[in-house]
Amino acid sequence: MSPDPLITLLTDFGTSDYFVGALKGVILATNPKAQILDLTHDIRPHDVEEAAFTLLAASDSFPAGTIHVAVVDPGVGSSRRPIAVFSGDQAFVGPDNGLFSYILERNDEAKVFHLTNERYFRQPVSSTFHGRDIFAPVAAALSLGIGPEKLGEEITGACRLRPLTPERMKNGRVRGRVIHIDRFGNCITNFTPADVTTNRGIRLVIRGKAIRSIRQFFADDHDRQKIFAIWGSAGFLEIAAKNTSAAKILKAKRGDRVIIT
Amino acid sequence: MSPDPLITLLTDFGTSDYFVGALKGVILATNPKAQILDLTHDIRPHDVEEAAFTLLAASDSFPAGTIHVAVVDPGVGSSRRPIAVFSGDQAFVGPDNGLFSYILERNDEAKVFHLTNERYFRQPVSSTFHGRDIFAPVAAALSLGIGPEKLGEEITGACRLRPLTPERMKNGRVRGRVIHIDRFGNCITNFTPADVTTNRGIRLVIRGKAIRSIRQFFADDHDRQKIFAIWGSAGFLEIAAKNTSAAKILKAKRGDRVIIT
Amino acid sequence: MSPDPLITLLTDFGTSDYFVGALKGVILATNPKAQILDLTHDIRPHDVEEAAFTLLAASDSFPAGTIHVAVVDPGVGSSRRPIAVFSGDQAFVGPDNGLFSYILERNDEAKVFHLTNERYFRQPVSSTFHGRDIFAPVAAALSLGIGPEKLGEEITGACRLRPLTPERMKNGRVRGRVIHIDRFGNCITNFTPADVTTNRGIRLVIRGKAIRSIRQFFADDHDRQKIFAIWGSAGFLEIAAKNTSAAKILKAKRGDRVIIT
Repeated sequence: MSPDPLITLLTDFGTSDYFVGALKGVILATNPKAQILDLTHDIRPHDVEEAAFTLLAASDSFPAGTIHVAVVDPGVGSSRRPIAVFSGDQAFVGPDNGLFSYILERNDEAKVFHLTNERYFRQPVSSTFHGRDIFAPVAAALSLGIGPEKLGEEITGACRLRPLTPERMKNGRVRGRVIHIDRFGNCITNFTPADVTTNRGIRLVIRGKAIRSIRQFFADDHDRQKIFAIWGSAGFLEIAAKNTSAAKILKAKRGDRVIIT
Repeated sequence: MSPDPLITLLTDFGTSDYFVGALKGVILATNPKAQILDLTHDIRPHDVEEAAFTLLAASDSFPAGTIHVAVVDPGVGSSRRPIAVFSGDQAFVGPDNGLFSYILERNDEAKVFHLTNERYFRQPVSSTFHGRDIFAPVAAALSLGIGPEKLGEEITGACRLRPLTPERMKNGRVRGRVIHIDRFGNCITNFTPADVTTNRGIRLVIRGKAIRSIRQFFADDHDRQKIFAIWGSAGFLEIAAKNTSAAKILKAKRGDRVIIT
Repeated sequence: MSPDPLITLLTDFGTSDYFVGALKGVILATNPKAQILDLTHDIRPHDVEEAAFTLLAASDSFPAGTIHVAVVDPGVGSSRRPIAVFSGDQAFVGPDNGLFSYILERNDEAKVFHLTNERYFRQPVSSTFHGRDIFAPVAAALSLGIGPEKLGEEITGACRLRPLTPERMKNGRVRGRVIHIDRFGNCITNFTPADVTTNRGIRLVIRGKAIRSIRQFFADDHDRQKIFAIWGSAGFLEIAAKNTSAAKILKAKRGDRVIIT
């Protein structure tokens, strides 16, 4: 017996309104066997970039067959397209506004479909809540085994955010940026092991502050530096501080430039 | 094979205490096959009116057979009655303090039962946590197929909040109010399409500010008004602002009067 | 057909990052039949004591066979041990930093295993996210029926917090403390019915304020005291105020001394 299909939810709805409940109800009304999981509903309102990062980092752990519904949708009701992205063995359903940008950047072979078949929408489709009326019911349809080609045409040219890949500069430096700041104040950069091939002899500069080594553990403090770099769990280099917020000490914000020499 | 029974939870418990976990444990201890879904636990403490609106708007999407447990219960331990409401093919379990008022207002044929059969309670019943000791176990019993008549007597006269229906005034105006303000600052009024039969030539006044049209989309800005009205996803007229909070601009609060001419 | 295995999650991750999603994905990648339930992700960052209390109070309602994953782990990457605790018919998986202290204090027969068998870890194990790489996959393995002895050696001497039991003083008084303050401002003490055998003729002092009776109901106000004591739903004596926060009135904090005469 195959397990129940998994559908995850990632939104900027917060948890105090009826929006999240409505998504769940619509999915279960179409497929009562769906297992629904909350990834997060606390994306900052309309913050597509934060949502794109969170989706990239969380989806990495999920099994084949998982369907992710992502609704951070400031352009709801405008001409932005509703899409479904198929990458690896996972599906992603939501607006075409960059939400799936990092998923697409990581996988050249991902396919994108424009959701146009209204047969799989909840009727009538409201102008303000496509999460409930388009994305959730389409995800539920996918979980019932409806093929992507039934949902609409395959398209190219999905909306992309600024790429995750750092820039190599002429002087041998690599210019990256802070792509996320987590609850503990760790500053996640866009550097991956492909950009930084050594843990020693590097110099990393953020907001005028230089960091000279990459630690292996948070608890490692032989180098006495309050602020340090460490390879984080999402596969990116993070700037952290022991038992405190690196972001607060550095006054760092997402988008801040980070240079590696 | 019938799908697992759905039980949703709506409370003002917040998510940092053990209360929500306790509800879930009690339900699963009685019916391990129940599928539990969080609607929200972030209703403002003791805010029965907000809970009633959220329950109305969310339950609308759920399939037949869903059981909703709602616990916003400032009178716990007093003489307020524990009840179960059966409306359409859904059940609602919680205190008789107005929580189910809007569900009852929308459906004259809903039935209400006073929960008196202690056989379905968790023993001993605490004086402070009927969510865990009465409402969750009764919901679990319902999910096992126990009939309502086993739980107690059918009653009339359940507690009602101020009705959702706007008042028609002698001068042809209709007087409504803001019934909810959502995370994005949209002000949901109690006007439904039954109260407003045209999208043009109307005039809507809130906090001294006049709004002259109802937009079809958030993104529609040919009329250049910052504040506009739009039919919202819960079926009510909403007062919104493009990419910002209408509530903040208007300094609107729930309960504010809204007049339509 | 046996029901799907239950795995609960309790963390200090908050709900705006990808951490919670990652835990869920890892569990379901190992055991797609697992039913995952959020207890809370809003433990204050690194607050092991709050987590230990919440786990004690919530787990009490869960059925036999439940597996609890608890990740409040300031020492991640240091030498603190990963452990699994088996108490009653429930399992608890997380770091050995006191999280399971109250569970162990309540049950002398609980067994503790040091998780050393890397075969059940997610590889490679990061230095910063053992929740995803050790605790979640071990919980998933347990849910598949892997026996504790496969996970590592049984150990004694697990890390303990300050005990929950109040101290009996020479003068007949009993000295307790506030162990938790909930969302409603109720101050939960560590007094249990074993410490307080009568509801009348007692005198309870907290922050210089004397309380003379234990009420049966919140709504009970014949004694006109604003602040009162009541037996709470977690089995401890609570200091509460009607329709307001006792903690705010008393300026109480967790750890505050409470004396009963």
